[in-house]
Amino acid sequence: MNECIFCKIIKEEIPAKIIYEDKDVISFLDRNQVNKGHALVMPKKHHKNFLVTPRKEFSDLMEVSKKVAEAQMKILGSEGFNLIVNTNKAAGQVVDHLHIHVIPRYSGDGLQVTYGGDNKKGASDEEYEKIKSFLKH
Amino acid sequence: MNECIFCKIIKEEIPAKIIYEDKDVISFLDRNQVNKGHALVMPKKHHKNFLVTPRKEFSDLMEVSKKVAEAQMKILGSEGFNLIVNTNKAAGQVVDHLHIHVIPRYSGDGLQVTYGGDNKKGASDEEYEKIKSFLKH
Repeated sequence: MNECIFCKIIKEEIPAKIIYEDKDVISFLDRNQVNKGHALVMPKKHHKNFLVTPRKEFSDLMEVSKKVAEAQMKILGSEGFNLIVNTNKAAGQVVDHLHIHVIPRYSGDGLQVTYGGDNKKGASDEEYEKIKSFLKH
Repeated sequence: MNECIFCKIIKEEIPAKIIYEDKDVISFLDRNQVNKGHALVMPKKHHKNFLVTPRKEFSDLMEVSKKVAEAQMKILGSEGFNLIVNTNKAAGQVVDHLHIHVIPRYSGDGLQVTYGGDNKKGASDEEYEKIKSFLKH
């Protein structure tokens, strides 16, 4: 916890370009914006990821994310946005303090998502049935 | 509305690999899974995007997304996942019926997000101040 860079930003121990703050939620521009206006929205309370974040708290974050996206569209002229939550290292979660990426998008901004693996063939019929069965319980 | 491909899946007019369904929410495997197990979670009611979806309904979708991600990890052995909501065409939203992508991730699956544009330099100080000011209201 002491080492969490986002907790340090929340405690104002290190600077960030904060764009929104209330009692429970904070939003600031990503240190390495992948697109102009790329912001992060997170709880002030340290939760390591989405799976352990209480429903009500996450819902509050989504409402702030909506406002942030609206601000990006209004101020920066973005035409859409991606909301992205990465969970665990394999998914690209770099800081273990839950955060939502709000990435403004501009027509022709060149963003591409590519996969190099061979997982693209999808789940087998057997795997599909197992997932379906798991979700019945 | 009549032309919405997701509404047609919900009404069982066209087939899909449905993995979860309740009164308000449905989840099925993406027709073109970018990674093994890639699923979509959406409301049965047609909302065109995140911005117009009521808070309570979206929160229900997130709870189902959590279960779907847990099923992927349990059944497929994924080690993490990305939750992605694309809003508007510029952000890659292809079907105008709100949906959450739940993309299971595997170490070394080769996913890469790249930007070809010049927006990467980020928001200017002036733009930052304007966004901050906008979010105060």
